[in-house]
Amino acid sequence: MGFTQDRSADLAGAIDPAKPTSVILLIGDGMDDSMITAARNYSVGAAGRLALDELPFSGAMTTYGLKVGAGPDYPIAYVSDSAPTASGWSTGKKTVDGRLSQGPSTAATVPGEDYETVLEKFEKAGKLTGDVSTAEITDATPAAAASHINARACQGPANMADCTAAKKSNGGKGSVAEQLVDSGVDVLLGGGAARFAQATDAGPTVLDYAKSTRNYAVATTAAELDAVTSVATKPVLGLFSSANMTRKYAKLEAKAGGATTPDGTCAAQDRGTQPTLQAMTEKAITLLDNPNGFFLQVEGASVDKAEHERDICGAIGELEELDLAVKSALAYQKTHPDTLVIVTGDHAHSTQIVPDDFGGSMTATVTAFDGDPMTVAYSSSYAGTPPQQATHTGAQIRVAAIGPQAANVTGVIDQTDLFATMLGRTPST
Amino acid sequence: MGFTQDRSADLAGAIDPAKPTSVILLIGDGMDDSMITAARNYSVGAAGRLALDELPFSGAMTTYGLKVGAGPDYPIAYVSDSAPTASGWSTGKKTVDGRLSQGPSTAATVPGEDYETVLEKFEKAGKLTGDVSTAEITDATPAAAASHINARACQGPANMADCTAAKKSNGGKGSVAEQLVDSGVDVLLGGGAARFAQATDAGPTVLDYAKSTRNYAVATTAAELDAVTSVATKPVLGLFSSANMTRKYAKLEAKAGGATTPDGTCAAQDRGTQPTLQAMTEKAITLLDNPNGFFLQVEGASVDKAEHERDICGAIGELEELDLAVKSALAYQKTHPDTLVIVTGDHAHSTQIVPDDFGGSMTATVTAFDGDPMTVAYSSSYAGTPPQQATHTGAQIRVAAIGPQAANVTGVIDQTDLFATMLGRTPST
Ligand SMILES: [Mg+2]
Ligand SMILES: [Mg+2]
Ligand SMILES: [Zn+2]
Ligand SMILES: [Zn+2]
Ligand SMILES: [Zn+2]
Ligand SMILES: [Zn+2]
Repeated sequence: MGFTQDRSADLAGAIDPAKPTSVILLIGDGMDDSMITAARNYSVGAAGRLALDELPFSGAMTTYGLKVGAGPDYPIAYVSDSAPTASGWSTGKKTVDGRLSQGPSTAATVPGEDYETVLEKFEKAGKLTGDVSTAEITDATPAAAASHINARACQGPANMADCTAAKKSNGGKGSVAEQLVDSGVDVLLGGGAARFAQATDAGPTVLDYAKSTRNYAVATTAAELDAVTSVATKPVLGLFSSANMTRKYAKLEAKAGGATTPDGTCAAQDRGTQPTLQAMTEKAITLLDNPNGFFLQVEGASVDKAEHERDICGAIGELEELDLAVKSALAYQKTHPDTLVIVTGDHAHSTQIVPDDFGGSMTATVTAFDGDPMTVAYSSSYAGTPPQQATHTGAQIRVAAIGPQAANVTGVIDQTDLFATMLGRTPST
Repeated sequence: MGFTQDRSADLAGAIDPAKPTSVILLIGDGMDDSMITAARNYSVGAAGRLALDELPFSGAMTTYGLKVGAGPDYPIAYVSDSAPTASGWSTGKKTVDGRLSQGPSTAATVPGEDYETVLEKFEKAGKLTGDVSTAEITDATPAAAASHINARACQGPANMADCTAAKKSNGGKGSVAEQLVDSGVDVLLGGGAARFAQATDAGPTVLDYAKSTRNYAVATTAAELDAVTSVATKPVLGLFSSANMTRKYAKLEAKAGGATTPDGTCAAQDRGTQPTLQAMTEKAITLLDNPNGFFLQVEGASVDKAEHERDICGAIGELEELDLAVKSALAYQKTHPDTLVIVTGDHAHSTQIVPDDFGGSMTATVTAFDGDPMTVAYSSSYAGTPPQQATHTGAQIRVAAIGPQAANVTGVIDQTDLFATMLGRTPST
């Protein structure tokens, strides 16, 4: 058990103060230390190691946000949603719940100042860019990379109730879907086809607009994605699901008195023609790989979505899929050492690993890789019918990295610190 | 906000592959990433930094244990108590709940194999040793450093119901209290005077035995501790409280519907003549400081004990006190760079930072340093009258270090890995 060698020389050898040429940022939405541990226990055992465990530099990252107010000093929100957290690393600045790469303001419906994102800065530097998620590609995490809007709900032109100023017909930048294709991200892969089937204010659907005005090639199945071999002349928009993509495992929902599956293991479910997150990540890397460098954000989105539903199998499966994407990113980094790879979450979540005899609260038990039972319980108010969703929590979360300037994730950092690290800090040596 | 410089050079400069001369291990019982974040928010603000945040090397540490069984392969316990976890870093080996520096066995009442501890190995190497806690000094965490017994409850000679084979009158090593003074730890400071007032099987109290047979000088107040200036001729036993030492803050117990204090802040409470954890730590370092080196374990014990009681103020205060002890240890390390300082917890716990509108579960709200409300909720079964205590949880926890071989806490490690690191690994360069 454990490791036998002093790691000092290995760590010294892994320090690279150069600015990164390329950056791959892999996010598990809601992936905190508790969920990583639960997935490790289930998938490889308590003493096993995930790919994301193996990055040489690691630290703790704070994820707090702001609340709307009169400003200029806004109240602190000790628990945040996925919009301000993704905006944090995307722009280097804090903002309020629901907001995408825009500053705080007096109310949720009042737009803040647009903040330029890492992805946009890479674009300006003439580098290629990619944005990949298992959620709707217009969901908060991927949206923050390349759109600016006061309310995350405004994903398509038919969803603009809280964002009237942003409507294109009002002279705004449009919905998240419109902004993503306007930004010209070279590789956009995920779910959310229904948003792109909505009519723009000008008439055609967002998808038609993406194809005819923004020159996007469109893929809707794993096979169609496989067939894409270059983004040199056309960026690619992959929409593999109407809404969020299908999770690896069927749901196991915690309930009062305890839930489990017939044999204690999570059941794989049919994902039809959808590509896996690893397949999307490998394709994105292949398409973006170029001597000038690229920025790629990859999200395992439904760790969070399953946790909200108290679905331990859904969350574990999504984390397993993200871990395979990490494995692919690390393989690329090994042959392209000028690439910085960062793996982290956006905020902590509800799942707690609890004793087997935990009792009354909503729990589920699975048989872990070691062959022994692991029980989880969920933070929740349990109020209402049905009980409210399990909620985000405010703990700092793990961040890990390898490659140029990866040392900047050690100790305790804030997620806004990733912004300068991904853009490349002035080398210290 | 955030840091502006690339940290690569600083981190490279902090790597020291030499074996440490001295080791100071500071433990917050139950101190996981969630509790660290809650204490930081309350004490210095969401963007503030605790002393324990500032150590240059950091990682995640797994804390699982074993369950009793036929062996040789024992079932995994994904949530552990303080006995096997402290035994893990003390001995480098896993064991079962309730057990102190002994291996697993078929039942809780059946002794396992004694495992030699880091403290004992330092003693054998002719170095000085110290063991400091705000709990009874016979409680699981300090006990594991220098005693070996099948059940942690066997703290004094009158508490041996589950440890009959260990009774001195049965030819055993005796209770934890007896073993601690038999081990000759040079500096033993904490609570638990009532255990030492118990009669040994031979007749005199443990305290009398400690003084007359084991040559201990005894201190019972901060002033008496102040007066101790050397352990060259007599080791020192400080017992400052009948049971656990008094917490910094009065209790704020979470309840259904939410609890708070009149002004939102935690109220300091009278601690009489008890020294603070920082005072005990500074005195221990002063007494142990010598060219040949020492091992010192310091525990902020009641982070855990307060969390069990859903007492957020108690837990925050105890973490603040530990953080001051960390500050003192770091100041010593700065002038004694051959000292390895490690700061971590033993296992995760129940406290979650939740949204303000969390609702029904047991919550408490305090006004954090930023001036804004922070709400916490607790894992618990809520069954029984009164409801069961909040429980330990199974998440990996933060570990941080500075000094020789501190790089060995980076990435993902198990708490048993600390054993070889504290003893000093073969330098890699
Ligand atoms: Mg997301
Ligand atoms: Mg303890
Ligand atoms: Zn999220
Ligand atoms: Zn969420
Ligand atoms: Zn403990
Ligand atoms: Zn405990």
